[in-house]
Amino acid sequence: MVVRTSSSPSTPITSPAAALSALRESAPLTQCITNAVVTNFTANALLALGASPAMCDIPGEAGMFAGLAGGVLVNLGTPTAEQRDAAREAVRAGTPWVLDPVAVGALPVRTALAHELLDARPAIIRGNASEILALAGAGAGGRGVDTTDATDDALGAARALAARTGGAVAVSGPIDLIVDADRTARVPGGSALLTRVTGGGCALGAAMAAFAAVVSPVDAAITASVVWAVASERAASAARGPGSFAVAFLDELAAVRPSDLDARVEGSR
Amino acid sequence: MVVRTSSSPSTPITSPAAALSALRESAPLTQCITNAVVTNFTANALLALGASPAMCDIPGEAGMFAGLAGGVLVNLGTPTAEQRDAAREAVRAGTPWVLDPVAVGALPVRTALAHELLDARPAIIRGNASEILALAGAGAGGRGVDTTDATDDALGAARALAARTGGAVAVSGPIDLIVDADRTARVPGGSALLTRVTGGGCALGAAMAAFAAVVSPVDAAITASVVWAVASERAASAARGPGSFAVAFLDELAAVRPSDLDARVEGSR
Amino acid sequence: MVVRTSSSPSTPITSPAAALSALRESAPLTQCITNAVVTNFTANALLALGASPAMCDIPGEAGMFAGLAGGVLVNLGTPTAEQRDAAREAVRAGTPWVLDPVAVGALPVRTALAHELLDARPAIIRGNASEILALAGAGAGGRGVDTTDATDDALGAARALAARTGGAVAVSGPIDLIVDADRTARVPGGSALLTRVTGGGCALGAAMAAFAAVVSPVDAAITASVVWAVASERAASAARGPGSFAVAFLDELAAVRPSDLDARVEGSR
Repeated sequence: MVVRTSSSPSTPITSPAAALSALRESAPLTQCITNAVVTNFTANALLALGASPAMCDIPGEAGMFAGLAGGVLVNLGTPTAEQRDAAREAVRAGTPWVLDPVAVGALPVRTALAHELLDARPAIIRGNASEILALAGAGAGGRGVDTTDATDDALGAARALAARTGGAVAVSGPIDLIVDADRTARVPGGSALLTRVTGGGCALGAAMAAFAAVVSPVDAAITASVVWAVASERAASAARGPGSFAVAFLDELAAVRPSDLDARVEGSR
Repeated sequence: MVVRTSSSPSTPITSPAAALSALRESAPLTQCITNAVVTNFTANALLALGASPAMCDIPGEAGMFAGLAGGVLVNLGTPTAEQRDAAREAVRAGTPWVLDPVAVGALPVRTALAHELLDARPAIIRGNASEILALAGAGAGGRGVDTTDATDDALGAARALAARTGGAVAVSGPIDLIVDADRTARVPGGSALLTRVTGGGCALGAAMAAFAAVVSPVDAAITASVVWAVASERAASAARGPGSFAVAFLDELAAVRPSDLDARVEGSR
Repeated sequence: MVVRTSSSPSTPITSPAAALSALRESAPLTQCITNAVVTNFTANALLALGASPAMCDIPGEAGMFAGLAGGVLVNLGTPTAEQRDAAREAVRAGTPWVLDPVAVGALPVRTALAHELLDARPAIIRGNASEILALAGAGAGGRGVDTTDATDDALGAARALAARTGGAVAVSGPIDLIVDADRTARVPGGSALLTRVTGGGCALGAAMAAFAAVVSPVDAAITASVVWAVASERAASAARGPGSFAVAFLDELAAVRPSDLDARVEGSR
C-alpha cells in the first residue's frame, strides 16, 4: 500500500509516523457525538489507538466539553433531538471537529442539520462517495450507509466542499481519497472485511478527530486512513470472519507502531 | 436438528436454502428501530448474514426510510419517546415489518405501544413464550427479557395473534415455534449460549425482517430460526465462553451456506 | 492478589465466594440505567457473571421496574433527559442501587443530578478517585472518564460520602478502595488492559448492583472488585490486545468459580 499525495510546497506535511507518535504522547481527549450503533466500537477503537474518548452528547454539556477536548466528532447516524442540539453547541467551541454526514441526502432531518453545521467549518468531512456528493449538492445520496458511487466520482465534490470549509475532505472507499486546498492524497489498501463490520467508517471519522488534535486536518485524515489500512490488513490475515475480524482490528490498532506507517507513504508535493 | 412443519397444501414454501440465497443476492436494506443494548450486535449480525442494516429511528425520517427498506424491525426493548414515534411512522409504510414486543406485559409504556402497533399488522411477531402470551392477553408477561413460560404453552396465543394480524408468529425457546394461518413449524437445535449473550433474540428478529424482504413472512421466520440454530451450534463448538461465542456466532453467520440448511428441514404440509 | 479489610466486629461479612454462589443461585434481576457506550458490554458482563440484566430506562417504566429488580444501577455517562427522569423514578423504589457518577464535577447537568440523587441514599457509590473527590465536594473532577487523582487521595472523600449515605463507596484504580461506616478494604490486582476497553468500570458498577441484591452493600462492592481483578488477570494472560482482552474477560467472568475468590481474601475486622 502506498499513499500518493500531491500538494503545493507551502503546505507543511507531518508524516503518519510522526502523527501517530504525537497522538500516543498526548492521548488527546476526543469527544464523540455519534450514533447509537457504533458508540462502543468507536470508543474502543480510540482507546486502542491511544486516544482518550468521551461520548459527551447532551445539550448543556456538549459545548463546554468541546472546549476541553482536543478534537470533536459529529456523526449524524442516529441524530436524536438532543444530539442535534449537542452538535450545534459543540461545533461552536473552536475545537477542530469532524463531520460524518451519514446517509445524508435522502433523509431530511440529518440533511438539514448537515448543511447547517457546514457553516461552522468542519476541519474534516468524512463520508463515502455518495454522502460527499450529496452534501456538495451533486448527488442524491446513497442507500443508507451504503455508497452507490465510486470514490473518484466524488473528487470534484470533495474539492468544492474543502474550498467552502477551508478544511480537508476524506472520501472513504476501496481507495481512500483525501483533499484539501493544497493536496490530493489517495490511500489504497485495507480490507473489505471492514465493510462487513458496523462502525468501521464511523470509527475512522473519530480517529480523524483524535489526530486533528495533534496535526493539521489533512494530515489527520491521511494518517487515520493509513492506520486503518494497515490495521485492517493485518486483522484480516488472522480473521475467520467478520466477528473475529472486529476483535483483531482493535488488537491491531493497539499494536501498530509509527514505523509500520512510514514505508506506506509515497508522495509528491 | 430437524424442522418439522405441517401446513395446508395451498401455501407456497420456500426452502431455507433458497431463502438464504435470495437474501445474499439482494442484500435487502433492513431498517431497525431497536433497543440501545443490542443495536451494534444486531447490525453486525445482519451484515454477517448478508443483509444491509440501517438503524434509522428518528421521527421525520423513519417513515420515509421504511418506504425504501425491504424489511423493518420494531423492537421495544428501550422505547424512548422518539423511537415510539419513529415506530408509528415506520409501520405505516407498507413494508413487511417485524414486531419484537420485548418485556411486554408488565411494563405499561411498551405494552400500550405494542397493542397500538398490532393494528398495523406486523408480518411477523417474534418473542419468547411469556411475551407472546402477554401480547395475546393470555399471560402476565415474563421477568424482563426472561421467559417464565415454555414455548408450546404459547401455541394458542401465537395462533390467535397470527389470526389477528394475518401474518406469522415466532415463539423463541429451546425449540422455536413458528405459526401462521396455514402452518405450524418447530425448529429445534441451537445453543443455550445464545441466551448468555445479550441480543441473540433481538438480532433474530432483525434477521426475520431481512428475510421478509425476500420471502413470505412464515418462510422468513422459519429460515431465520434455522440459520440461528445452525450458526449457534457451530459457534458453541469452538467457544470458551459467552464472549468468544458471540464473536464466533458472527463468523458462522457469514460462513453458513444455503446447503447447510437443507438437511435440516423435514416437514409435512 | 489479596483483599485487605479492617472493620468493626459488629459488621457481618459475607465472603466473596459465598456472595458469588448466592448470585448464581438467584440470578438477580439487575436494572441498568446506563450510558449508550457501554450498555451492550454491561449486559453481557452481567449475563456472563450469572445475573439477569434489564436496561429499562424510560420514564413511566423505570420506577415500576426498579420495584421488581434486585439491584439497580444509575450510571451518568450519557444522561439524556429521559434517562434523568428514569433515574429519579428508579431510586425511589426502595431497591438497593448503585450510583456511578461518570465525569461528575466538570459537567453541570450530570453534576446537578448526581447531587440530587445522593439524597436517595445509594447503597453503593462507585467511581474513580477524581469522581469521588468531586462528588464529595473535594475536587474539581477528572478529565472525562479519566482520573487525575490517586485512589487513596480519595479516602477521606469516600468516607465522607459513606457517612452521608449510610452505604458503601468504592474508588476504582490500580488498587480498588472500598469503605463503609465500619470497614476499609483494598482490592489490588487486576489488569491495566481493563482501562483500554470502554465500560470496564461501568460494568463493574453494574456487577455491584447485582451483588447488592444478594449481600450487603460493602460485601457487594468488595466481591465485584475481587471478581473483576481475578477475571481481568486471567483474560490478560491470553489476550493479544484490547479487542481479544474484552472477549476473554467475558469468558472469564462466566468461568470464575467461587473457590477462585477465597484465596484472594485476607482481612482483619
